[in-house]
Amino acid sequence: MGKGRIEAFSDGVIAIIITIMVLELEVPHHVDLHSLLPLLPVFLSYVLSFIMIGIYWNNHHHMFHVVHHVRGGVLWANLHLLFWLSLMPFTTAWMGENHIESLPVALYGFVLMMSGVAYYILARSLIALEGQDSALAIAFGQDRKGKISVLIYAAAIVLAFVSPWIAIACYVVVALIWLVPDRRVEKVLLAAPAHGNTPGPNAPHP
Amino acid sequence: MGKGRIEAFSDGVIAIIITIMVLELEVPHHVDLHSLLPLLPVFLSYVLSFIMIGIYWNNHHHMFHVVHHVRGGVLWANLHLLFWLSLMPFTTAWMGENHIESLPVALYGFVLMMSGVAYYILARSLIALEGQDSALAIAFGQDRKGKISVLIYAAAIVLAFVSPWIAIACYVVVALIWLVPDRRVEKVLLAAPAHGNTPGPNAPHP
Amino acid sequence: MGKGRIEAFSDGVIAIIITIMVLELEVPHHVDLHSLLPLLPVFLSYVLSFIMIGIYWNNHHHMFHVVHHVRGGVLWANLHLLFWLSLMPFTTAWMGENHIESLPVALYGFVLMMSGVAYYILARSLIALEGQDSALAIAFGQDRKGKISVLIYAAAIVLAFVSPWIAIACYVVVALIWLVPDRRVEKVLLAAPAHGNTPGPNAPHP
Amino acid sequence: MGKGRIEAFSDGVIAIIITIMVLELEVPHHVDLHSLLPLLPVFLSYVLSFIMIGIYWNNHHHMFHVVHHVRGGVLWANLHLLFWLSLMPFTTAWMGENHIESLPVALYGFVLMMSGVAYYILARSLIALEGQDSALAIAFGQDRKGKISVLIYAAAIVLAFVSPWIAIACYVVVALIWLVPDRRVEKVLLAAPAHGNTPGPNAPHP
Repeated sequence: MGKGRIEAFSDGVIAIIITIMVLELEVPHHVDLHSLLPLLPVFLSYVLSFIMIGIYWNNHHHMFHVVHHVRGGVLWANLHLLFWLSLMPFTTAWMGENHIESLPVALYGFVLMMSGVAYYILARSLIALEGQDSALAIAFGQDRKGKISVLIYAAAIVLAFVSPWIAIACYVVVALIWLVPDRRVEKVLLAAPAHGNTPGPNAPHP
Repeated sequence: MGKGRIEAFSDGVIAIIITIMVLELEVPHHVDLHSLLPLLPVFLSYVLSFIMIGIYWNNHHHMFHVVHHVRGGVLWANLHLLFWLSLMPFTTAWMGENHIESLPVALYGFVLMMSGVAYYILARSLIALEGQDSALAIAFGQDRKGKISVLIYAAAIVLAFVSPWIAIACYVVVALIWLVPDRRVEKVLLAAPAHGNTPGPNAPHP
Repeated sequence: MGKGRIEAFSDGVIAIIITIMVLELEVPHHVDLHSLLPLLPVFLSYVLSFIMIGIYWNNHHHMFHVVHHVRGGVLWANLHLLFWLSLMPFTTAWMGENHIESLPVALYGFVLMMSGVAYYILARSLIALEGQDSALAIAFGQDRKGKISVLIYAAAIVLAFVSPWIAIACYVVVALIWLVPDRRVEKVLLAAPAHGNTPGPNAPHP
Repeated sequence: MGKGRIEAFSDGVIAIIITIMVLELEVPHHVDLHSLLPLLPVFLSYVLSFIMIGIYWNNHHHMFHVVHHVRGGVLWANLHLLFWLSLMPFTTAWMGENHIESLPVALYGFVLMMSGVAYYILARSLIALEGQDSALAIAFGQDRKGKISVLIYAAAIVLAFVSPWIAIACYVVVALIWLVPDRRVEKVLLAAPAHGNTPGPNAPHP
């Protein structure tokens, strides 16, 4: 089967997830700066989640770019990833509306961790189809970045009960891991021949 | 007419249905585990509905994969299916927010049953276009799986007034019927020649 | 410019409009049949609006099927149509939640009438691009159906203040006008040669 | 990488943004004209935002029409633009629900200004890929219109504290700047050869 519809459906779901989160920014009934202040943690949670989901969309885009065809198992592995991502508007709102407390921050990390695991399963199910010598398999490699991310999330869930801010710092670190080296990957992509454009080592995984 | 736009529109509607259901998970105002507890039936309803709609999307994807062209009647048969699916966020929320009681559980089953009927009508209108010897007609066959599903739903609606949990068990059974043999179907698909890839007996129907 | 993106964007907006209307079906806090009863007018309004927007999507699909390219003016004529359609969730909810009273029913008709006018402008701007001897121009013809619809809407707006039910009857009549002869159009389409498939006289207009 | 998916994802996000704004039009509980009156500023804010986002979609469409390929940096520049646009439902609602007061009107302008800046960054990142002699670079030119828009927004943010209505007038002026000369641009496009269709000087920027 072609990959067009799985890409289109994923784009649709991710576009909705990233956009409905803004509905959690409740419109204040007053017009002074003080009425905006309680929205600050909600807003910052929104920014963090927007970046996280942006990273997932980016990597999903890269990964399916080198995929040639899909099968039923892949459809379900993809739906599994979308399921965990679809919980982000809820965890983002719970974290933001309660001024960054331990349990909501830990749950936020849990959903991120499960999304990371789901992404790994999706990548594995695609590599099983594409073959171990495919561009995807080479690009995915040992997936150090993905494994480190999941470990940091696991640590953050525990650390959230010491201080939620340490956990938040962990999430920011994971986001930076995925944002920063993106440029290096791009250069690898440019150096590679036009068709066999691999997204570079460890690229397609948040 | 090409099938591109009917696929894109269906993807859009199903993506929105599957995503806005999460808005029913009302964000608690407290941060302890006890405040998450009342969300559990809502969450489990969400999981069940996510899987049900995932099955529909999967089968819709398979079915249109072997379709060559569409006509006005098909557009309306498809809209009819989307209508019943669009009621799932409502029935899911009513079932979840009331801790699994008879009437909401029966209504949930009724919408599922009508979705099944609508899917059958859509498949029949596509087969009428494609011909009785088309890949679609062969794959759809007697549609035993679809007919059994509708019968189980009908039984579940009645049984919900004995115990809502029996009805829920019926819905889980239908979901398993559609989830489990998916792998067998895939093997049929692989065995088949590349172009005439039929989704296998009874495949495209939830 | 190609027509792909204007189709995709319209599909997206119409998919969202048709789906978020269901959010107006407020989940009852009780589980008896009596708590569903007040939802009946909201539900029937939803069914009517679902059909109306379904007709628009159907006709939009038919119309752009015979269009070859678009231009800036068409993008705005299309956005103008989407603007009026985007007001339907509001007018549907206001009509449904107030048990079918005069003013909401009249406003509902006003938005339908303006959507009809916007569709006419869009069709005219497309015909100006395609030429007076194009398949689109021939199919659109004198657009008797579109003009009659707008006249019925105008009458319904006035009649809503006599009895809202007369106005509702008018809307149902318009829906039937567009639903019923669809099959005849399909036959015209089938009779026509493969490429120059015109949607038949007066077809692409709700 | 191809541009298909970045276009599809942007279409999805913009379609949702432009549509969920209408959810801020709270359905009145009464059916007289007086109950519609308080909705007037919300409605007018909706109309203004609908036009603004329509302009962005239009220009995004034009700009990507002449783009040949994208890269990771472009994906993030595009997400950055979508982030600012995604805040428009919030600022629109805050402005509309408080009867056009200084601070909400200034914040509305701030988000518009940041969207303008984000669009500029996106255009620059695309031109860096396409080359300084590309159709896009020539069309974008010195981007006088974009720079003037951002200056007007900056002035409007300050002037909102003198009178919010002056700021609103500024936003309307920017909208007119982008709406009116669109027709001239179209003529340039028609005069240009088919493939090298540039959107004309300063066109792809709101």
